[in-house]
Amino acid sequence: MIVVMKQTATEDNIQSIITKLHDLGLDAHLSRGASITLIGVVGDKSKFLAENPQLMPGVERLVPISESYKLANIKFHPEQTVIDVNGVKIGGDHFTIIAGPCAIESYDQLMESAIAAKKAGAQILRGGAYKPRTSPYSFQGLEEEGLRYMADIRKETGMPVITEVTSCKAMETAVNYVDLMQIGARNMQNFELLKEVGKSNLPVLLKRGLCATIEEWLNAAEYIMSEGNQNVILCERGIRTYETSTRNTLDISAVPVLRSKTHLPILVDPSHASGIREYIAPLSRAAIAVGADGLEIEVHPNPACALSDGPQSLNPEDFKALCEQLKPYIQLAGRKF
Amino acid sequence: MIVVMKQTATEDNIQSIITKLHDLGLDAHLSRGASITLIGVVGDKSKFLAENPQLMPGVERLVPISESYKLANIKFHPEQTVIDVNGVKIGGDHFTIIAGPCAIESYDQLMESAIAAKKAGAQILRGGAYKPRTSPYSFQGLEEEGLRYMADIRKETGMPVITEVTSCKAMETAVNYVDLMQIGARNMQNFELLKEVGKSNLPVLLKRGLCATIEEWLNAAEYIMSEGNQNVILCERGIRTYETSTRNTLDISAVPVLRSKTHLPILVDPSHASGIREYIAPLSRAAIAVGADGLEIEVHPNPACALSDGPQSLNPEDFKALCEQLKPYIQLAGRKF
Amino acid sequence: MIVVMKQTATEDNIQSIITKLHDLGLDAHLSRGASITLIGVVGDKSKFLAENPQLMPGVERLVPISESYKLANIKFHPEQTVIDVNGVKIGGDHFTIIAGPCAIESYDQLMESAIAAKKAGAQILRGGAYKPRTSPYSFQGLEEEGLRYMADIRKETGMPVITEVTSCKAMETAVNYVDLMQIGARNMQNFELLKEVGKSNLPVLLKRGLCATIEEWLNAAEYIMSEGNQNVILCERGIRTYETSTRNTLDISAVPVLRSKTHLPILVDPSHASGIREYIAPLSRAAIAVGADGLEIEVHPNPACALSDGPQSLNPEDFKALCEQLKPYIQLAGRKF
Amino acid sequence: MIVVMKQTATEDNIQSIITKLHDLGLDAHLSRGASITLIGVVGDKSKFLAENPQLMPGVERLVPISESYKLANIKFHPEQTVIDVNGVKIGGDHFTIIAGPCAIESYDQLMESAIAAKKAGAQILRGGAYKPRTSPYSFQGLEEEGLRYMADIRKETGMPVITEVTSCKAMETAVNYVDLMQIGARNMQNFELLKEVGKSNLPVLLKRGLCATIEEWLNAAEYIMSEGNQNVILCERGIRTYETSTRNTLDISAVPVLRSKTHLPILVDPSHASGIREYIAPLSRAAIAVGADGLEIEVHPNPACALSDGPQSLNPEDFKALCEQLKPYIQLAGRKF
Repeated sequence: MIVVMKQTATEDNIQSIITKLHDLGLDAHLSRGASITLIGVVGDKSKFLAENPQLMPGVERLVPISESYKLANIKFHPEQTVIDVNGVKIGGDHFTIIAGPCAIESYDQLMESAIAAKKAGAQILRGGAYKPRTSPYSFQGLEEEGLRYMADIRKETGMPVITEVTSCKAMETAVNYVDLMQIGARNMQNFELLKEVGKSNLPVLLKRGLCATIEEWLNAAEYIMSEGNQNVILCERGIRTYETSTRNTLDISAVPVLRSKTHLPILVDPSHASGIREYIAPLSRAAIAVGADGLEIEVHPNPACALSDGPQSLNPEDFKALCEQLKPYIQLAGRKF
Repeated sequence: MIVVMKQTATEDNIQSIITKLHDLGLDAHLSRGASITLIGVVGDKSKFLAENPQLMPGVERLVPISESYKLANIKFHPEQTVIDVNGVKIGGDHFTIIAGPCAIESYDQLMESAIAAKKAGAQILRGGAYKPRTSPYSFQGLEEEGLRYMADIRKETGMPVITEVTSCKAMETAVNYVDLMQIGARNMQNFELLKEVGKSNLPVLLKRGLCATIEEWLNAAEYIMSEGNQNVILCERGIRTYETSTRNTLDISAVPVLRSKTHLPILVDPSHASGIREYIAPLSRAAIAVGADGLEIEVHPNPACALSDGPQSLNPEDFKALCEQLKPYIQLAGRKF
Repeated sequence: MIVVMKQTATEDNIQSIITKLHDLGLDAHLSRGASITLIGVVGDKSKFLAENPQLMPGVERLVPISESYKLANIKFHPEQTVIDVNGVKIGGDHFTIIAGPCAIESYDQLMESAIAAKKAGAQILRGGAYKPRTSPYSFQGLEEEGLRYMADIRKETGMPVITEVTSCKAMETAVNYVDLMQIGARNMQNFELLKEVGKSNLPVLLKRGLCATIEEWLNAAEYIMSEGNQNVILCERGIRTYETSTRNTLDISAVPVLRSKTHLPILVDPSHASGIREYIAPLSRAAIAVGADGLEIEVHPNPACALSDGPQSLNPEDFKALCEQLKPYIQLAGRKF
Repeated sequence: MIVVMKQTATEDNIQSIITKLHDLGLDAHLSRGASITLIGVVGDKSKFLAENPQLMPGVERLVPISESYKLANIKFHPEQTVIDVNGVKIGGDHFTIIAGPCAIESYDQLMESAIAAKKAGAQILRGGAYKPRTSPYSFQGLEEEGLRYMADIRKETGMPVITEVTSCKAMETAVNYVDLMQIGARNMQNFELLKEVGKSNLPVLLKRGLCATIEEWLNAAEYIMSEGNQNVILCERGIRTYETSTRNTLDISAVPVLRSKTHLPILVDPSHASGIREYIAPLSRAAIAVGADGLEIEVHPNPACALSDGPQSLNPEDFKALCEQLKPYIQLAGRKF
């Protein structure tokens, strides 16, 4: 951390900061320019930050140098993490496709989705039991009934299952039925939930918040990891920008950026990123080519009857065709699928 | 709602949509142009939307015409709502200032804040007991102990108190101690929490999400109201944009925009919007002049020692000076303070 | 275009709009709902818009239905356009790489870049003679001297050349030396320049504005095309968002979105999008996989000595390695390279 | 400027940077932490930047400390600048309103606007002769004919006049007719135009670009000032964000932010910021209260017949009422009007 002093800072101002740093057991490195003086803080900056140095006389601003996340940081954990979701590997040289309906509507609908997903090559089944919806008048999910269908269908198909948990209560129920928990974009900074999920042993798919920076996203992963759960998978699902021709703007660069900052696996969700069925195939190809570890895609046996996200869901044939189209790209990327 | 048909839509495509609408008991108004045909949907559009009309053959897109929120909508409730927070009125011709520390740190710190706030003219005391923090390594709040201080200080000073609730569990505890619950920006679309808060009788201050549209924000208010709690106050606190010279970008226009769309009271939080103490005074004046019903401002007896948000907190003298400076603006705006 | 009437609109308000439409030779299609009345406008809406209908009594707002660009619109020109740049084809089943330095610094620097670009497989040489720089104290370009180098090197290497034109004056000079003119992001809505470029016969590469919507971008293309020049190539180069870990946010979805709206060829510039050398390879692969018609990449014989954009420039070896890495992706995408 | 070294940087890497700095006549201040080494650069950083230090072995990134604009910087010019526009003062304790139509349509229309503007208290008349329009099929302006009307009406009313210049050619014509030139948002980084305008003696109103940061905006002012013209007035007119309920998002905080960084006068344009007539009054009040030096407002004798921006233009009576409403706010802000 660097303390940038004001042009008008006095010698006394500078000395009191140095004294404060020494009192805290930190080193101060002074750098005097023609018009600006800088003080480099060496040591555990959190002690210094707790003193609100921005408010000390003569201070103009603070410039952070190192990241605040540690467990998620590739600097302290240089090998890529591979996460085992009940036998399915995510990360490393694996390529994983999670597919299934936005919302679980019935046993049959979920079963048909599972069969279609598995047949096309997807390894994990998704299905929403607790649905966060913009309007309170939209369908809100089957809750525990939906989770029971998930567990049943896992037994019958052998596919691990994932569901979104929208509250601590939902999480407590979900852990009994699923193999992977999803934290949705709207809950990426629901810190209570992150901490609860961190106390569980179940792997977690952490979606990026609607307008979260990559730094905030990795800090959200750190919330989970600092409670003990190291099995965090990141999923880029588009960010909010001024452009409205897609539902969100897929930040495809987030994949290589994350790769340079963290050892956690990285998926891409082209369904939510675009919101439009026609764009899912090109964006899936791009995600593979850019280096993602997998995809999360909405599949519904009959999108026209879906209770949620129908317009961005693929039907079984289209999903099968998509997977066929993706296979040579996955192979070219050197991944097992 | 308008259904825009593709240029390539056939007569059959058009007729099946009309038939579907009639089957649902809705009216269809057809408008044929040289290259595009439009179908106006008259009646309860939610029935039609549940059929995923975007996926019907020949449909290009849907254009929504009316808002999805009803209880928060000024069209159906034209008089401005005035909310009574334990004797303090918010809305109408009142002007209300909520002040206090970001985080409750001790009884003394909160008491000194309360005395300073009251002396300067603030009517409601704020204090955070559950703190959502970007990094898990930052101070997380005193929880119930902090709430007890709030209740004690309310008794001694007579000031109603507000605290942020970050989970259903926090809410269940908080309702026993405070007069007004705050939903923070990060939880604006924590729908579980919105519904729980909607079942309570306590007034709610709903902050705008970091990148929420005004439409989404009013739908979040609708979540609370549709559960029975009509006492919702909106608070603009800045949105995320590309500009980094302030912590967020205060969307000052949101005040008149909301005024034209809803009957709910509207506050402004210049502390979080700017993140910088020097900008709180000008932004407070702007908020009054633009027509806000009040302000929420961070005040701390000793910002330099604050455990959270010190750099954007005012000390007692500065807060007193600010209120003096604001009084003629409040008066000019025709408000009681 | 749809006219949405206010809830409070009178029968008279509605009738005067219908009368106005008929007076203009347009058709009005009325659709009355329980609370809202809509009027569909059929015919040339520009006549109606010129009357400022938003200001007519009883009107709430206008909802546009059809796009304002015509010549760039795939609806009126369904075949993909292939553009011939002095023998090099862009669009269709071709894949084109434009490479070279951000700024032309000397004959030798440009010549070395050309040799490296050609050897690796790039078909067109880029080089900036007029440099738009954020600070007036940065290097501003060699101007006509640089263009002369371009023309000389084109003769020697046989590669067509492209340069950015930043003003009408620069354009008048550049047309004498280059095969393709570039309009940079900062000039995407420099309408004077667009019109001038539209009067020329030379193909134009139109970069997306820093915060331009796809609709505005296609309207900018329309400015050029409506003056007679149909040879417009679009180039996505990242948009401005709140995320700062890359210089801009590459809007990869823009490629399929554009493909559905226009017949013009679409390139991607991963150098400006990311601003960081390490991300150019993954983003280039993504661009090919998503369906782009080509790439524009900054290459410099010695990036460490570059006068502009060194940190995002590739050196000859890295560029060669990149092209080798891209070839199987180009082949998989079914493109000739 | 701070050079942040990679964790893996060797002692040799560090020494070569220090040597490079010394060779350039700069000082290097070394600060070694447990995991990161920083090198503070003291002296003229532009020499060092020209060497592309980001590419030197072992360098992670550069952290700029001081601003790149000098002439516009309050640090080097602490007194507020007051600009004289043919007898009308802008800045200091003056409050200035610029009013008039978006586009000049005829002598009569401009004259009626001038009379209305002057009667209500506006000191400067605006009128567009060269119109940048999103679609090439919209009205493009009267050009020199419009400027002649401006000059005539200035003579008759005594009001100084302002017009937007959209190209160097337009500028060369306009300087003969007007007292103040406007650079529009779309041309804020049209550096050729900025340099030309900088060579003129006429004061310049520089609008903020659609997605320009405050830093870029001040650098654009620096372009003009570095050519000799110190008479630059800044005008905040809203930035592009994801929120669509207003045409742009007025960044009201930009006024106090600019005040802390520059000595140049600052105006606000509520017409373009909101795009909606009803919001102009509250935003104008906010602009005065936040500390702006003036307003630019669109006024048209008959907005319903305006060829451009009718929906956001005020008619003479509404403008008069607005000015009456604003007067007590201007007085409260301690300004002369």
